[in-house]
Amino acid sequence: MSENKVLSDLEIARRAGIKPITEIAERAGINADALELYGPYKAKINPAHLRLPGGKPAGKVVLVSAMSPTPAGEGKSTTTVGLADSLARAGHKVMIALREPSLGPILGMKGGATGGGYSQVLPMDDINLHFTGDFHAITSANNALMALVDNHIYQGNQLGIDPRRMTFKRVLDMNDRSLREIVIGLGGPAQGVPRQDGFDITVASEIMAVFCLSSDLDDLRTRLGRITFGYTYERKPVTVADLGVEGALTLLLKDAIKPNLVQTIAGTPALVHGGPFANIAHGCNSLIATRTAQQLADVVVTEAGFGADLGAEKYMDIKSRIADVAPSAVVIVATIRALKMQGGVPKEELGVPNVEAVAAGVGNLKRHVGNVAKFGISPVVAINKFGTDTPEELDWLLAWCAAEGVQAAVADVWGRGGGGDGGDELAAKVAAAVDAPSNFHHLYPLEMPVEDKIRTIVQEIYGADGVEFSVPALRRLAEIEKNGWGGLPVCMAKTQYSFTDDASQLGAPKGFRVHVRELIPKTGAGFIVALTGAVMTMPGLPKEPAAIRMNVDEDGNPTGLF
Amino acid sequence: MSENKVLSDLEIARRAGIKPITEIAERAGINADALELYGPYKAKINPAHLRLPGGKPAGKVVLVSAMSPTPAGEGKSTTTVGLADSLARAGHKVMIALREPSLGPILGMKGGATGGGYSQVLPMDDINLHFTGDFHAITSANNALMALVDNHIYQGNQLGIDPRRMTFKRVLDMNDRSLREIVIGLGGPAQGVPRQDGFDITVASEIMAVFCLSSDLDDLRTRLGRITFGYTYERKPVTVADLGVEGALTLLLKDAIKPNLVQTIAGTPALVHGGPFANIAHGCNSLIATRTAQQLADVVVTEAGFGADLGAEKYMDIKSRIADVAPSAVVIVATIRALKMQGGVPKEELGVPNVEAVAAGVGNLKRHVGNVAKFGISPVVAINKFGTDTPEELDWLLAWCAAEGVQAAVADVWGRGGGGDGGDELAAKVAAAVDAPSNFHHLYPLEMPVEDKIRTIVQEIYGADGVEFSVPALRRLAEIEKNGWGGLPVCMAKTQYSFTDDASQLGAPKGFRVHVRELIPKTGAGFIVALTGAVMTMPGLPKEPAAIRMNVDEDGNPTGLF
Repeated sequence: MSENKVLSDLEIARRAGIKPITEIAERAGINADALELYGPYKAKINPAHLRLPGGKPAGKVVLVSAMSPTPAGEGKSTTTVGLADSLARAGHKVMIALREPSLGPILGMKGGATGGGYSQVLPMDDINLHFTGDFHAITSANNALMALVDNHIYQGNQLGIDPRRMTFKRVLDMNDRSLREIVIGLGGPAQGVPRQDGFDITVASEIMAVFCLSSDLDDLRTRLGRITFGYTYERKPVTVADLGVEGALTLLLKDAIKPNLVQTIAGTPALVHGGPFANIAHGCNSLIATRTAQQLADVVVTEAGFGADLGAEKYMDIKSRIADVAPSAVVIVATIRALKMQGGVPKEELGVPNVEAVAAGVGNLKRHVGNVAKFGISPVVAINKFGTDTPEELDWLLAWCAAEGVQAAVADVWGRGGGGDGGDELAAKVAAAVDAPSNFHHLYPLEMPVEDKIRTIVQEIYGADGVEFSVPALRRLAEIEKNGWGGLPVCMAKTQYSFTDDASQLGAPKGFRVHVRELIPKTGAGFIVALTGAVMTMPGLPKEPAAIRMNVDEDGNPTGLF
Repeated sequence: MSENKVLSDLEIARRAGIKPITEIAERAGINADALELYGPYKAKINPAHLRLPGGKPAGKVVLVSAMSPTPAGEGKSTTTVGLADSLARAGHKVMIALREPSLGPILGMKGGATGGGYSQVLPMDDINLHFTGDFHAITSANNALMALVDNHIYQGNQLGIDPRRMTFKRVLDMNDRSLREIVIGLGGPAQGVPRQDGFDITVASEIMAVFCLSSDLDDLRTRLGRITFGYTYERKPVTVADLGVEGALTLLLKDAIKPNLVQTIAGTPALVHGGPFANIAHGCNSLIATRTAQQLADVVVTEAGFGADLGAEKYMDIKSRIADVAPSAVVIVATIRALKMQGGVPKEELGVPNVEAVAAGVGNLKRHVGNVAKFGISPVVAINKFGTDTPEELDWLLAWCAAEGVQAAVADVWGRGGGGDGGDELAAKVAAAVDAPSNFHHLYPLEMPVEDKIRTIVQEIYGADGVEFSVPALRRLAEIEKNGWGGLPVCMAKTQYSFTDDASQLGAPKGFRVHVRELIPKTGAGFIVALTGAVMTMPGLPKEPAAIRMNVDEDGNPTGLF
């Protein structure tokens, strides 16, 4: 093989010397009887069976977020993995907590969600396919609920559920646009009660969000019971507990809820568990995985979906209220390419050296940096190096960070790996940030009315002048207060590409208002989703789906996957 | 606990001394590197990695079938497990091959599919829930195909697929009657192309049948490619290979296709793998599991779905044509209760002693016995003992079998276990039958026209006077010949409760005709389904679903499951 050939992620992963997961577990201090093997390289951890030495303080959390994402790709997962490897290399006891990838998009677009280059979690093909079946279990629980609901209506509808006011859908872990809007229950009296319906993708299920915010099996059951799936003819909310099936749903999730242990190319232990959307949900791995990692390690590197305006804000205001997982340090991943795009350069020209465009786009990064500071934490900027970056561009950005008083480092964890020296400087700055005193606080108190919570996020984080509620959203605000849900935090569903609700407004726009068209109470997960603009909860496949190139070789190994 | 209390299946299973699956594997002669653990008590076997001593002849197959099933339950799986345990107790090297249970019905009706009493496979709760995720993988592959098909139509429909002539549906492993008849692709041009559709339960998917009839990964890919999912506007069949996604579907099934190793209460190794319907499919575990068991053991005890008219006939005429898995012995499970019911006694009175009713119902058993002989094998009748059976009833049946020249034994494998002495006599008779010379042959040659194949089954096995084809079925017969599918075997879809196509005709009816209303070519699985009467491919939930009683205790163990 020519040394010039760039290896694919799958090729790099296959050549990496993957270790038995029992060895990774032992080094991480996990007792063998808390480990449930899924083949030689994956295992579930039963947190109830962990025997840990007393007195160890909970590991400190490093939250990896990013500037506003672009189609160019910023490498947030790659940076998360590489940073953790570099911290481990520097002698820290580190564990990673990451989301599980969704199968649907993998069949559509080429590309996985397990990092890239020399900063990947392994076995990446397994993790990107069925893994340990967690998403399948969530799909089953979700669809069992809806089969039970429609059966209840069919069998006499004792609860008086209004089939026109259902707020919960069936799900598949598939990109299947034909299922977005459907009519079910056709075929006459023996086949059910007709109603308008639709499927979402599994990661958009409220059960996924519930799964990821539960602290244990009991809490999972309580939250499942609290899910509102629709309303009665008298407009009263109907919950899973009203139907009495939260026990069965918990049973279907009893194994899935145990975090999955895997490893990076450098051998750092990683918990990959849960994967809710970052728009209609909070967008980070399970609370149980984060807490388990905190029990086992001194430093936990975790990731939040999309840019810091969405993922990080939700991590701070939703997840960090349930348990003490507030970050000690926040990393904002930036790239020269993304800055150029925020500065107005089209995707095709991102490889052309252009310091002016970097400068023109830096306002986007600046707003994210300022936002993180509003939670009492000074972020570290990780400049994820790409082959097309010039020294002039990188130097300009480092100088800008210095002038702004922001810690920053260039990282080449894709090319050199965090297990190599690609992330040493970044790791040193992050380690210092972890040890620095922080003053973490939420953005708003829960007692604040929902309307004001939304206004606070929109003005403080997005930089908008204000918010406008549609007539249905105003009606829902009143309902939310009436039903006693006003004390829940808010989960904003907004395009990830812009601070505004219009994906085409890049950079750091000013003088705009955000339009809230609908509010969806997710009473199981415990937040109110505010929909701004169109949010896709069931993606479609492209004209040439990646599936067409996929196959299995004679040894049973995947080909054409990435 | 009072000694009079009857333990539930779940309680018996929980008290059984389950052994590490590595120990079961070692005793079965499976090398460690062919084993992929799924927790401590389940494992997948990679047949490609098996290292077996040369020269061992393939294990002989014992096929467990039954008289026509009744709602009283005959305990076929219980007898299969108990018989294998008894054969092992007698010193034979035995392995069981069984179907995996479907999750859908478990949420509806209380009861699993892993045997009962002291003849169960363990861990029964895991096996009855998600097990190792095989059905989820099949669901994913099935639904990926349909997402890709509808996407193809949406993206320009280069193949000219007629959305009104689709013959393949999406599936869920759920009892969900509301999804039987639906309309998809609503919502305007951005959401797809509207068409009438529906969901089946996963075990009814042709991919399940393909999965269970494939001899290896290559054969799986070939069969997947051969699946006809619909027709073009010119009425030409369109296959998965036309779409070019058989590789991706194979990739989604690459781990599922490895057989699952578990154990019985007595420690006998069991491969539990695949689970196609016994009406619109062939109704037995995967061919790969049967072949792997034959490689490892001297005697393989396996089971066919429903009564011998359906499951056994399909085992002989479909599965046994693909590979050398023809049975050396056939067991027909009969019960006093079922014979009474076939003799006209209502379910509520089955506990009342009634030798006359047993005699009145024995014609049903007699026809099944005669049918098996038509394949060149003299069956052994296993009388599965229930607590309400009287010595007079049992003696009458044994005397009848003796007079007919049929080998028979009473087995109490539910109460005493095959690992105890509950199946010793049955095992002895089955062992003798295995060693006796057999003259196995198929019922019909493949060259026979499809119409005549159906007529042969209907007259020879069901005892009908003849067959009547509907007008659409006649049209389809012509199409089948035109498309070159005339050489495929036939898979009858008929009620399991009667030899006729009318479930209420019990016993051994005569003077009837069977009505074929439709023919469905399953070109991937490799058979033509003949539909007689209504066949349910998506069950519904009852008014009081079992799910309402299910839960998880504080240790994470299931409660209310069985």
